[in-house]
Amino acid sequence: MPLGERAGDKSDSRYCGVETEFNEDMPLALSSNLSSGFDFLLCPLVNGSQLSALSIESLAQSALLPFAGSDLVLTPSQWSSHVVGKVSSWIDLDSDDELLRLDSETTLKQEIAWASHLSLQACLLPRPPGPSCANYARCVNQLLQGLNNMQLWLRVPLDKSDEDAMDGLSNHVNDTWEWWNSFRLLCEHHSQLSIALDVLSSLPSGNSLGRWFGEPIRAAIIHTNSFLTNARGYPCLSKRHQKLMDGFFNHSVQWTSQMREVFGDELHLQLCCVGIARNPLRPYLDYVGYLYQRMDPLSEQERFEIGYRDFLQAPLQPLMDNLEAQTYETFEKDTMKYSQYQRAVSKALFDRVPDEKASTITTVLMVVGAGRGPLVRASLQAAEATGRKLKVYAVEKNPNAIVTLHSLVKLEGWEKVVTIVSCDMRRWDAPEKADILVSELLGSFGDNELSPECLDGAQRFLKPDGISIPSSYTSFIQPVTASKLYKDVKSHKDIVHFETAYVVKLHSVARLCPSQPVFTFTHPDHSTKKSNQRYRKLRFEIPSDTGSVMVHGFAGYFDATLYKDVHLGIEPSTATPNMFSWFAIFFPLRTPICVPPGSPLELQFWRCCGSTKVWYEWCVTSPCQSSIHNPGGRSYWVGL
Amino acid sequence: MPLGERAGDKSDSRYCGVETEFNEDMPLALSSNLSSGFDFLLCPLVNGSQLSALSIESLAQSALLPFAGSDLVLTPSQWSSHVVGKVSSWIDLDSDDELLRLDSETTLKQEIAWASHLSLQACLLPRPPGPSCANYARCVNQLLQGLNNMQLWLRVPLDKSDEDAMDGLSNHVNDTWEWWNSFRLLCEHHSQLSIALDVLSSLPSGNSLGRWFGEPIRAAIIHTNSFLTNARGYPCLSKRHQKLMDGFFNHSVQWTSQMREVFGDELHLQLCCVGIARNPLRPYLDYVGYLYQRMDPLSEQERFEIGYRDFLQAPLQPLMDNLEAQTYETFEKDTMKYSQYQRAVSKALFDRVPDEKASTITTVLMVVGAGRGPLVRASLQAAEATGRKLKVYAVEKNPNAIVTLHSLVKLEGWEKVVTIVSCDMRRWDAPEKADILVSELLGSFGDNELSPECLDGAQRFLKPDGISIPSSYTSFIQPVTASKLYKDVKSHKDIVHFETAYVVKLHSVARLCPSQPVFTFTHPDHSTKKSNQRYRKLRFEIPSDTGSVMVHGFAGYFDATLYKDVHLGIEPSTATPNMFSWFAIFFPLRTPICVPPGSPLELQFWRCCGSTKVWYEWCVTSPCQSSIHNPGGRSYWVGL
Repeated sequence: MPLGERAGDKSDSRYCGVETEFNEDMPLALSSNLSSGFDFLLCPLVNGSQLSALSIESLAQSALLPFAGSDLVLTPSQWSSHVVGKVSSWIDLDSDDELLRLDSETTLKQEIAWASHLSLQACLLPRPPGPSCANYARCVNQLLQGLNNMQLWLRVPLDKSDEDAMDGLSNHVNDTWEWWNSFRLLCEHHSQLSIALDVLSSLPSGNSLGRWFGEPIRAAIIHTNSFLTNARGYPCLSKRHQKLMDGFFNHSVQWTSQMREVFGDELHLQLCCVGIARNPLRPYLDYVGYLYQRMDPLSEQERFEIGYRDFLQAPLQPLMDNLEAQTYETFEKDTMKYSQYQRAVSKALFDRVPDEKASTITTVLMVVGAGRGPLVRASLQAAEATGRKLKVYAVEKNPNAIVTLHSLVKLEGWEKVVTIVSCDMRRWDAPEKADILVSELLGSFGDNELSPECLDGAQRFLKPDGISIPSSYTSFIQPVTASKLYKDVKSHKDIVHFETAYVVKLHSVARLCPSQPVFTFTHPDHSTKKSNQRYRKLRFEIPSDTGSVMVHGFAGYFDATLYKDVHLGIEPSTATPNMFSWFAIFFPLRTPICVPPGSPLELQFWRCCGSTKVWYEWCVTSPCQSSIHNPGGRSYWVGL
Repeated sequence: MPLGERAGDKSDSRYCGVETEFNEDMPLALSSNLSSGFDFLLCPLVNGSQLSALSIESLAQSALLPFAGSDLVLTPSQWSSHVVGKVSSWIDLDSDDELLRLDSETTLKQEIAWASHLSLQACLLPRPPGPSCANYARCVNQLLQGLNNMQLWLRVPLDKSDEDAMDGLSNHVNDTWEWWNSFRLLCEHHSQLSIALDVLSSLPSGNSLGRWFGEPIRAAIIHTNSFLTNARGYPCLSKRHQKLMDGFFNHSVQWTSQMREVFGDELHLQLCCVGIARNPLRPYLDYVGYLYQRMDPLSEQERFEIGYRDFLQAPLQPLMDNLEAQTYETFEKDTMKYSQYQRAVSKALFDRVPDEKASTITTVLMVVGAGRGPLVRASLQAAEATGRKLKVYAVEKNPNAIVTLHSLVKLEGWEKVVTIVSCDMRRWDAPEKADILVSELLGSFGDNELSPECLDGAQRFLKPDGISIPSSYTSFIQPVTASKLYKDVKSHKDIVHFETAYVVKLHSVARLCPSQPVFTFTHPDHSTKKSNQRYRKLRFEIPSDTGSVMVHGFAGYFDATLYKDVHLGIEPSTATPNMFSWFAIFFPLRTPICVPPGSPLELQFWRCCGSTKVWYEWCVTSPCQSSIHNPGGRSYWVGL
C-alpha cells in the first residue's frame, strides 16, 4: 500500500518494506506484513545458519539436499513484486581464512542463482567488510556478467566518522562512501549494481551526504533506533533525517520517469525490525507516510522537466540545421525569457532616446535570428511601454521561419514598422545601421551555439555607439558526481560519446563545489586583434568535510547580461526563475577521476576555432592527468 | 656513415647526427657534415628569430611572405634521409602572455606543416617549460591527429634533481620524467609522439634511469660539455655515461627489428655543437663509434630472439589444440631444458634404487605429454647414466605426435623398454602404477597451460610414494613500464585485448622492482580438499630513488623445481641460462597506473576454475583502484 499521494509523483519512492529474518512460513509472513500496510519483504531466502565447508561439499556432491524452501510457496508474481532477497550476512569473501572465503563464494553464488530462479527484482548483498573488498567485488562482478534483470543492492552504512587508530595517536576517517567507490570501480560501474543505504542515527555533514545523490541509491534502510520519540510517544525523525528523507523521495522520481518498468530501479524505503515484533512498526510506517504526503506538490516547471531528468541530448546545431516548428513552439512559451528581453530593450530605449525626443527620434532595432518573431514582439512591446518609436528589421536565415514571420506581421498589422529580411546575418548587406541589435543565440554553455561568431558578423551594421542585447555572456562550470550519466555515455562503448557535450536536465547529480566562470564574450567588440579562441585553467577546491569524491564530468551553464542590470541565466546560484529554455550542459570524462580530500581539482578548457567549425577541448591536470578530450574537434563540434 | 659494425646488429642506433643552427646554405651544411662522417642534420627549418605578432598577422593576411627557404634546395630524398627538423625553440605555449601563446601556436603549426611538406621523417619539439604544459600538449595532440608518417620527438632533458624552493626551506624534486609523463598522458600515448633525450653531464640514479627504457626514446642528444678529456686530450665519457650509451645502443635494436621501414622509429645519437666550429666534433664522433664497436656481438640466443622482441603473441592452448610439428621442432632444440630434466630423473633414480639393487629393480617411469619423445630420450639417457633399469610409458593425446613417437622408438630400438599410449592422461586407465611421472606442461606463467589440472588427472596412476618431475612450480610477477606493449594492445580499440595475457620477449620494458611469487602448485598432492583456485594479494615497493613511475602492466614468469635442487625457470634473477622455450607473459592494464614515489603498488590476482575453462582475473587496488580485468574469463581463458 503506497505511502500516499503527491501530485505529479508516480514514483516507487512511495513503497515501503520490512526487513525480516528467514521465515519458514513465507505466505503468512508476507500476508501479515502486507495487511499491516507494507509493500514488500526484505528477507533471507535460505535458512541462514552458516553451512559448514563439509555440508557444502556434500551438497555439491549429492546435488540433492535442498537448501531452501520450495519456489512453490509463493506465486511467481508474489516473489517478483513483494520479495527482495537478502544474501546470508555471515559471508566474508575477504577473510584471511581461506576456507571461509571459499564457503562464502559458494554460498553467494548459490543464493544469487536461487534468487534468479525466483525472478526476484533485487537482492541485497551484505555490507562489505571495509574498503578492502577486492575478492567480494571480484565474485559479485563475475555474477553481474551473467545476471538476468535482477539488481544487486550493496548494503552500505551511511557513515563518515573519525575512528581512533590502534595507537591512540593518529585517527582515521572511516568513510563508507569509499567502500562503495572501491567496489563499483572494481565492478566497472556496472548498471545492475546499486546501493541500499543503511541510515544510522547520526548523520555525516551535509556536503558529505550530498555526494550520495550522484550515486545509484535504490533503497534506504532506516532502523527503528534512528527514530526519536515525540511528546505524544510517537516515533519521529530529527530535522536532518527529515531533510534526507525528502531528498530520497525527490530522487526516486527520476528513476521512475526513466525506467518505469524495472521495479529494482526505484527507490524504496525499508524499516528494519530486527529483534522486535512486527506490529509495533506500524507507527513508523505512518510517520514515513506523513513525511511523504506533506511534501510540496511538483511545480508546473518540474512536471514539464520530469521526463527529461538525466536524459542526455545532443546540443542543437542551429547554424547548420534549421530548427523545426516544434522547437520554436517550445521555446516561445518561455514567457520569463521574453519578459527579460522586453525589460532590457525598454532600458536601452530610455538610454538612447530622452523623453523630450521620444516622438521625433526613431530607433533602428534589428532582431538577428528572429525565428518566428518572439523578440520582434518583445521589442515592439518595449517600444509601446516606453513610448519610443521603433523601426524593426527582423533578420532570419531559416526560410521556413520566414513564412510564419510574414504571417505574424500581417496578422498583427506591423507592416509599417517591421521589415523582414531572409538572410544569414553574417552575410546581410544592411541598408542602414542599427541602434540596437537584439539576438537570442545563446546555448546552455553561452557561446556553444556560436553566438560570438554570428554577432561578429552582424556587428558591421551596428552604429559605433550602438547597443547589443545581450551585451555580454559568460559560461560557468562545476565538477559533478553523475554515475547515471557516466553509465549512459559509457554504454555506447566508444570514445566519440565521451568527447561530446550533452544538454541535460541534471537531477541525480551531486554538485561538488560552486561553479566558476569560464569564457566571457562582450558585444559589440571593436578591438582590432580579436579572436574567439579561449583558454582557461580552473582550480576547484572541494569542501574538506565532503570526503573523497568521484568526478564523472562537468556541468556547464551560462549567465548573460542582456542590458545593464537585466540578466538571464541558468547558473544555479543566480538562475533566472521559471525559465525552461535551457537545461545544463554536461562534459563527460572518459575516466572518472577520484579526488581525495584536500586535493584541488584542476580543469583546463579550450574553445578552438577552425575555418568551418568551433569546438571545445578539455582535460583534467590535477590530482591526476586525463587525456585531452576531443582533440581537433574529432568527436564533437559546432559547424559554422 | 654508420658508426661501425657489430655482428647481428642492423639497427639505426649506428647513426649519428649534428645539431646546428638555421643555415641559409643547406646543401653546403649537409655535405660538409656528411663528409665529416655524420649521417644527418638536426636543424631549424625557419630562420629562427621570433616573428612578432604583427608580422604573423600580416603573414596570415598576405599569405605570400616566404618564411623559409625553398623546398628545392635539397632533393626530396635528402630532406627525408638526412634532415630532422627542429621547431623554433622560442615558442612558449604555456606562457601567461596570451599574445605569446597565440604566436607560438601559429608558429608551431606552420613549422610542422612545412616539415610535413618536406616529407621529413621526424621533427624535434622544444622541451616543455615544466610539468605544466597542457596547452603545449593540446596543440601537439591536435597536430598528431592529422599528421602524415612524421614522428614528433619531444626534447626532454634527462634530469631528476632536488631543486631548492623559493622559501629556502622545502625542496622539490625536479623530475623531467614527469614532464614527459604529463605530456604523453594528455596526448593519449600517441604512437607518433616520442622522446629525444638530452643527456646532461650529471646523471640521475640507476633506478631513475631505468624507467626511460620502457619509453619510446628515439634519439639521445649528447652535449660536448658532457664529455670528459682523457690523458691524451681526447674526449671520452664517464663510466656511467658509457653504460647509458650501451643501453641506448641495445634498445634501438628492437625498433629496427619491428619497424625497419620507418627511419623515425630508430634511435639516433646526436652530438650537439652549439657555439663551436664543426670540424672539432670529429673526435667525439670517433669516440661514440668506438663505444659502439667495442660492444659484445649478439649471442646466438639473442639473434634467435631478436625478431620476437616486444612482439605480443597469444599463449598456446596445448590442451584444446594439438601442437604443430614446427612447434615441437622448436621446443625440442632447447638442449638446456632437457639436460635439466635428465639431471632430475638421474637424481630421482638414485634415490629410488640403491646401487646394490640397480640390476634387479625396474623403475616404472611415465612421461605424460610425451610429444615427439624428447623427455623419453632424456629419461632413458638418465637410466643409462645411472645404470638403472627403466620401463617407460609414453602417454600423448595428440595422435599426430604419436606417429612420430612410434617411428622414433623403432629407429632407436626402444621397443622393449617404451610403451606408447595414445590417450589423454586425464582419462587413461593405466595397467600399473608409476614410480616416476615426468611432464613438461608448464607455460610462461607456470600453471597457465593447465599443468595442475593435467597432473591431478595423472596422479591416479602414481604410486603413493611416487615422484613427480616437476615436483612443484611457482609463478612470479612484477610491475613494468612498457609503452610499446601498451600501445600495441590499445591499437585494437577493444576491451578483450586489454584482458588477455600475452607471451612476449620483453625488451623495451622497465622492470620497476623485483618480482614476487604468486601461485605455487606441488605434485603429487594427496590432500583431500584440494582446489586449483588461487587468490593472492601482492604489494610491491618501488625503490624510492626511482621517482614516479607508470605501470602499463605486469610481467609474469615461472620457476619450477624439477626434483630436489634441480630447477628450471625464467624468473629474471634465477633464470636458467641459454634456454629459449619460454618468453615472459604480459598482463596489461586497461588504464596505466601512475605510482608516486613512496606509494606501494597493490595487485590482486586470481586463478579461477570453471567446468570447461581456467582463467585469471587481476586488478590494482593501490595507489588507486582499477577495474577487475577479465571477469568470468570473458576475454581470455584456457580450455580444459
